Amino acid sequence: MLEPTQRTARPPKWAGWGDPEKRMALPTAALEMLRSELGQTEPMRSVELDEVGLPAPRPLPGAIVDAVNQASVLLAHEQRVRRSAGRSYPDLVRLRGGRLAAAPDAVVMPGNPAQLADVLEICAREGIAVVPFGGGTSVVGGVDAVAGPHERLISLDLRRIRRVEIDRVSLVATLGPGLRGPEAEDAVRAHGLTIGHFPQSFEYATVGGFAATRSAGQASSGYGRFDELVTALAMVTPAGELRTLATPHTAAGPSLRELVLGSEGVLGAITEVTVRVRPAPEARRYEGWMASDFASGCDAVRSLAQGEALPDVVRLSDETETRVSFGLSGTSGLRRLLLGTYLGVRRRRRGCLVICGWEGGRESVERRRALSARLLRRGGAAALGEAPGRAWERGRFDGPYLRDTLMDLGYMAETLETAHSWSRLDDLYRAVRAALGSALAAQGTPGIVMCHLSHAYRDGASLYFTFIARSRPGAEIEQWHALKTAACEAIVAAGGTITHHHAVGLDHAPYMPAEVGQTGLEALRALKERLDPAGIMNPGKLLP
Amino acid sequence: MLEPTQRTARPPKWAGWGDPEKRMALPTAALEMLRSELGQTEPMRSVELDEVGLPAPRPLPGAIVDAVNQASVLLAHEQRVRRSAGRSYPDLVRLRGGRLAAAPDAVVMPGNPAQLADVLEICAREGIAVVPFGGGTSVVGGVDAVAGPHERLISLDLRRIRRVEIDRVSLVATLGPGLRGPEAEDAVRAHGLTIGHFPQSFEYATVGGFAATRSAGQASSGYGRFDELVTALAMVTPAGELRTLATPHTAAGPSLRELVLGSEGVLGAITEVTVRVRPAPEARRYEGWMASDFASGCDAVRSLAQGEALPDVVRLSDETETRVSFGLSGTSGLRRLLLGTYLGVRRRRRGCLVICGWEGGRESVERRRALSARLLRRGGAAALGEAPGRAWERGRFDGPYLRDTLMDLGYMAETLETAHSWSRLDDLYRAVRAALGSALAAQGTPGIVMCHLSHAYRDGASLYFTFIARSRPGAEIEQWHALKTAACEAIVAAGGTITHHHAVGLDHAPYMPAEVGQTGLEALRALKERLDPAGIMNPGKLLP
Repeated sequence: MLEPTQRTARPPKWAGWGDPEKRMALPTAALEMLRSELGQTEPMRSVELDEVGLPAPRPLPGAIVDAVNQASVLLAHEQRVRRSAGRSYPDLVRLRGGRLAAAPDAVVMPGNPAQLADVLEICAREGIAVVPFGGGTSVVGGVDAVAGPHERLISLDLRRIRRVEIDRVSLVATLGPGLRGPEAEDAVRAHGLTIGHFPQSFEYATVGGFAATRSAGQASSGYGRFDELVTALAMVTPAGELRTLATPHTAAGPSLRELVLGSEGVLGAITEVTVRVRPAPEARRYEGWMASDFASGCDAVRSLAQGEALPDVVRLSDETETRVSFGLSGTSGLRRLLLGTYLGVRRRRRGCLVICGWEGGRESVERRRALSARLLRRGGAAALGEAPGRAWERGRFDGPYLRDTLMDLGYMAETLETAHSWSRLDDLYRAVRAALGSALAAQGTPGIVMCHLSHAYRDGASLYFTFIARSRPGAEIEQWHALKTAACEAIVAAGGTITHHHAVGLDHAPYMPAEVGQTGLEALRALKERLDPAGIMNPGKLLP
Repeated sequence: MLEPTQRTARPPKWAGWGDPEKRMALPTAALEMLRSELGQTEPMRSVELDEVGLPAPRPLPGAIVDAVNQASVLLAHEQRVRRSAGRSYPDLVRLRGGRLAAAPDAVVMPGNPAQLADVLEICAREGIAVVPFGGGTSVVGGVDAVAGPHERLISLDLRRIRRVEIDRVSLVATLGPGLRGPEAEDAVRAHGLTIGHFPQSFEYATVGGFAATRSAGQASSGYGRFDELVTALAMVTPAGELRTLATPHTAAGPSLRELVLGSEGVLGAITEVTVRVRPAPEARRYEGWMASDFASGCDAVRSLAQGEALPDVVRLSDETETRVSFGLSGTSGLRRLLLGTYLGVRRRRRGCLVICGWEGGRESVERRRALSARLLRRGGAAALGEAPGRAWERGRFDGPYLRDTLMDLGYMAETLETAHSWSRLDDLYRAVRAALGSALAAQGTPGIVMCHLSHAYRDGASLYFTFIARSRPGAEIEQWHALKTAACEAIVAAGGTITHHHAVGLDHAPYMPAEVGQTGLEALRALKERLDPAGIMNPGKLLP
């Protein structure tokens, strides 16, 4: 067993995304583009951390401190603020505003599953809500401080549960839930292996959170989504420990592993995750292609997915996202290269950017790249070389940092994702775009609505929408709610899923009846009531 | 929407396996081998179908006939006998003996999900047990007529629910549960597509049964197990219809699809299954290889699975299975080829047979075969050419037919399967072999215990055991029970799963506490109680 050195990553921004040392500036040209398309804005200010108003903490039973230890129960103002919300747009608006209606009464950090079980037992007995916090990167309200019917609430932090055990022969790693993305990846890299899981939240999100939310990484086409990597899990519930066998497969009934995956803390807290790992890639190649339009790009990606030729990363931006990406990126050299020289020759000044990445053995990367390239060309796409691929790689975690910059400037920037089968993807795309367009206009804040296709499968793909508009000062949450509702209703009407990888949390819970039906909801409620009879686990999340 | 012609397959043997026209004779040399190794036997007789004694049928509410129609409620002796049991060894022993303690009071065949819902409502109200029968091929007691706490019992036959709808763009097919394997495959083949699901029960098992039991086909390494092919399902439960969205993936909570898969009729009856399909293969190549021993063969298969070089079919027999296969097959020409000529040259007269199969585009088959061959050679295996591959293909559904022949002769022949991670596979192999060897000796019927590895994964593989011994006349069930118990206990002690693809049924239910733990059982019970509050669905199966 290995105990990786705990990375001394800086605590994330308290009212923004990620590393506090990292701030993305907008190039002047990009700012001009936004002002010209979306109009002038008022900057959105933020209070200072120590100015944030919180409800007074309610005292917790001393038994909780006894179950862990004094140092593992955090009561400070800063800790309470930090654990009060995730990183959704409304979360950040509320944090910046500085008046929080709810916050945990304490942050509790059990050192092992037995201590965790004790904490849950006390909380169940005393009626104290428990919010497993993970890395706190939820963008759907999944870790917001919601006590439900209870008066008190603790934020559960499993950072002390960080076991790493690697089985080289079977290529699996058993990981503690408290490891953050880079810590888990470093631990297996020390053995020449990779997990291959790189979601945009990678820097701060935890292994437990990846499992609890069915996280999908940017290279999920190649390595598999996190739920596909998991072979076994353990979860401590108020009713006892649930543990699945670490075998490659079983036909012994409904899959309990698939019940723990995606359970978002409402059934218990995940204490152990066994994942499949692979040899770290010997070669990597990322490059850009340009499809002539989104429809033909979709067809080309479908031909890759159905032709055993899917790159490990594949991402197709629509026309708007392609245009805005080049505008916002400010990499004028790249833009000139792409639009001025290369594509000019081909008289294709507009189009849809495709980013493709292949990783693995040198020979495999070359062979698979050639196969993909053949199908991309057959689909009418033109190769742009490695520069756009490298640019995408450099910025792969930057999206949410840019959101902070836009919010500072007075713009709202929000993302949401769905998925559908290939035959219904275009209808879904049009429906969500139209719904967001109309809702933005109705708010008096016409905006930019863009989309990319990613996470392609043989039978369909995910669509990831981003929209940017002037925020309505003082009415940011209402504005967001109207837009989110319009998009979700369009998704539901088109038969898409309410979430491909952001999970349900608070924001998507109202759409669960449409997603799983009344009988499905009853099944989930039956599980919840049996495993968490006192209803203390993450109230209000997942289940409406 | 297409309605495929219902194949007029002959009803299967009433007290044996499969097509009544197909009987496997044992070559004289094989019979001599069995007699010399296992001793002389007394033939095991069977009564005739009309001699079978059944409990008198209890009258059912007229409302059931009203819910379907007169022609869809079968009451005849033959129908009751046929639906009284599956095809496990003890099932066949009991059928041959001709005195059945239980049988359905009627066979009910709803024509659509609404009729099914009506039938379940009546049964729930009246306390009538419902056993979804599928193709009746369960080898673990999964369809045995067990009424549990109820007095009456119907066998549910969904053969009239046989919708076929194909989405060519998304490469998915929505199938009715009543389609048998060949019917479903024919329906998609008419569009140039394949499901690629070929379990040994293919000829009679149904789509609904494949899903309800997490069936795995012989080519599952390439096409995926049935549970991996399913994208969406509908199930009628006594509490209402459960339906999952037909999207390629969702992160909306615990997977309800994975609850319906493997539910073995205890939560409801599956009414619709959407599966991923592929272009029917343009080329197929099956061939044999010979590993020097089982351990090095396992290493070679692992190198295939972990080296992105897994054939679509891969199956490694241990030394005993290799020897017995050649002995029983009676293909003396093949045997001479293998053992006399080819291997003689290489001075390898013993070893472990590996069957590999590749299917798909011509180029893909060639390329992948070359990759697999390189790793097999590196692992010390020797190529035997296509003859053994073709022989395996010809006999791929024959195993259970041979069991009938052996039973006629007075031998018991039973199979069971498990799975584990690569690092623990050898321990599991030795433990189960030893347990069966000792238990056979303790029964006074020393036997042949053999095994093959199949369904290889990056992290592990399945082990499939077959054992043959003299049956103990008049004590066949006790003998079987002692052997089955010894094997299951060895599996549990070694941490393997109690079943890789035969499912749980009656026979494995006692081992579910070891498989999923007490909290896992509670979770499953909570689901059962919510979806089937009257406890009418397949009592006694899956849950102990």
